Amino acid sequence: MKISQLQSPALILDQGKVLRSTQAMTKRLAAKDVKLRPHMKTAKSIDVARMALEGNFGGVTVSTLKEADYFLGHGFADIVYAVCIEPAKLDHAANLAARGADLKVITDNVDVARAIATHGGKFRVLIEIDCGEHRTGTPPDHPGVLEIAVLLAGSATAELAGVMTHAGHSYGCRGEDEIKRIARDEREAVVSAATRLRDAGHECPIVSVGSTPTATFGESFEGVTETRPGVFVFYDLFQAGLGVCSVDEIALSVLTSVISQQPATNQILIDAGGLALSKDRSTAALETDLGFGLVCDADSGQPISTLPGPLVVSGVHQEHGQITLPEGTDMKQFPVGTRFRILPNHSCMTAAAYDSYNVIDGDDVIAEWSRCNGW
Amino acid sequence: MKISQLQSPALILDQGKVLRSTQAMTKRLAAKDVKLRPHMKTAKSIDVARMALEGNFGGVTVSTLKEADYFLGHGFADIVYAVCIEPAKLDHAANLAARGADLKVITDNVDVARAIATHGGKFRVLIEIDCGEHRTGTPPDHPGVLEIAVLLAGSATAELAGVMTHAGHSYGCRGEDEIKRIARDEREAVVSAATRLRDAGHECPIVSVGSTPTATFGESFEGVTETRPGVFVFYDLFQAGLGVCSVDEIALSVLTSVISQQPATNQILIDAGGLALSKDRSTAALETDLGFGLVCDADSGQPISTLPGPLVVSGVHQEHGQITLPEGTDMKQFPVGTRFRILPNHSCMTAAAYDSYNVIDGDDVIAEWSRCNGW
Repeated sequence: MKISQLQSPALILDQGKVLRSTQAMTKRLAAKDVKLRPHMKTAKSIDVARMALEGNFGGVTVSTLKEADYFLGHGFADIVYAVCIEPAKLDHAANLAARGADLKVITDNVDVARAIATHGGKFRVLIEIDCGEHRTGTPPDHPGVLEIAVLLAGSATAELAGVMTHAGHSYGCRGEDEIKRIARDEREAVVSAATRLRDAGHECPIVSVGSTPTATFGESFEGVTETRPGVFVFYDLFQAGLGVCSVDEIALSVLTSVISQQPATNQILIDAGGLALSKDRSTAALETDLGFGLVCDADSGQPISTLPGPLVVSGVHQEHGQITLPEGTDMKQFPVGTRFRILPNHSCMTAAAYDSYNVIDGDDVIAEWSRCNGW
Repeated sequence: MKISQLQSPALILDQGKVLRSTQAMTKRLAAKDVKLRPHMKTAKSIDVARMALEGNFGGVTVSTLKEADYFLGHGFADIVYAVCIEPAKLDHAANLAARGADLKVITDNVDVARAIATHGGKFRVLIEIDCGEHRTGTPPDHPGVLEIAVLLAGSATAELAGVMTHAGHSYGCRGEDEIKRIARDEREAVVSAATRLRDAGHECPIVSVGSTPTATFGESFEGVTETRPGVFVFYDLFQAGLGVCSVDEIALSVLTSVISQQPATNQILIDAGGLALSKDRSTAALETDLGFGLVCDADSGQPISTLPGPLVVSGVHQEHGQITLPEGTDMKQFPVGTRFRILPNHSCMTAAAYDSYNVIDGDDVIAEWSRCNGW
């Protein structure tokens, strides 16, 4: 089948681009002597996981326990569930461990550590460290780090597996130098927490960092055992705006069709709206705001370059996308039925609207890969 | 089962509130002597459709052809697909008609009308009229209105079914008087187009308007045969901000749990982020910006009222929501594991992240209703 034979809107994944990105990250981190535990929150796909794990040790990161079930069901047992667990999810996590998962749960909270220690499930625990983002995580020098370790040391069933952090504030960087600085902070925070734990007599086998920008530009991973980047498997316009990838490396796009022309606003309307693209506006924070996505040729996937400036999706309603044409553009060149592909601001958000990927090689659709959505 | 036994995040639907809203709209429109063809884009659920159709004529509105398949499969044949059709979707639409659907497709485009007229499928067509939103639709006095009618009159298989419009710009109103004015524009645009068509000798049995604000406040529906409001089945914070409903009438919410506390930012973190809530920020345009949703007690569904001002989700990451507490609040009152329900900015966007509703009566979970997502 050809792309042109698909119904729109549809999610398109360029297999060759995924392969190049995952190979490049694998090679880069191998050269830095640090393991890659890809975060599957972006792809939520066993097929993408297999590509990202090629040449790596086999461990994955997940963002939901449903993903953990899914990957365990496909034979991947070494899993980090990288969102702080809360007490009501411990039964589910214990069940995963009982079914053979080497599941690492995370927390930054002494009360949760107590619940984990006394639950009875076979838990391995990573303490989440705050390396400066101030989202979740405890500061590396906080008394809580050792309190959690002591609680786990006293448990018959749970154990400390190490420390982890996420430099989400690398998304606020402008340029490679800033990302390198954040990567230093990320490494130092988690390594210093590991040192404190070891000095106090606790084993700390896993020292884990992770974000695509810091995995891409980090200079030293000394003392770090693994990294957990996620969006690198597809990239997106926001990552391109950060300088982490080029627009040409973005593997994910949404196939759409022109459904109307509106002379009153000089707009063409497409059948990809807020549901098909997501309402993510992350590029609004960058130098070049790309609206709700960059408009590309449907077959080649290359941005429309025949007009002054980039052509973007300027507005969305639930099922309608609005593309405002530059003044003076003859909209006859984009009649109803014209096909485009839209590159997303944020791949994780856009892909989540679809149950599956239409996998392409050139303009051939070669496979359909399913996703593990929801909770 | 009780709400407290559900895993979070989960989508919650208050059956009693849906019943009251659908009964009230049915009663209001019956008194106005205009038919209700509820737009199922919000609920995408046969169970909600049955409640919204109670006491009405049985016609539904859909936003995707997949929804049309779904409702036809459940025995609802009278369907308006209220997004402009494009040529590549005509085979699918013709197949629906061949399977017994009385499917009305819409267009505002002469070229598409020609494709419809010559396709061979049994199409009934509504011409989309622009009543001032300038999204899709042709002005009521545009030559295209009659050109489309003439093309359809010459077809052996397709026919004109009427005209329709959507006053989406009622979402930009502030107050009842403005909405009443938009409702007048909406009615006048579509009635004047119908008059032009009839004056030219075309039958125009359907004259359709539709938005929740104009269905709620419109004073006259003279000459209009049906209305297509959608979000009224659940309402949301944006509709409450417009004055179309009260916060207490919002039937949809997201169950979530506190997963971390962050003293550095005076935030508590929840397991409902951008995927579980959507990134819709529509309340940012209103007088009271409610962030990514309003925080309520999990059991009662009532907004947290023990703190100064409304408690809102101030930020989201993929799986993390951030709730910034008012200065001086002791976060110990919201320990990890605390349950909340979040009222959404925009029900259509939030519900789309879930495959099903957990239907409640008080704090009892009494049913699970599935949704028809995707395309």
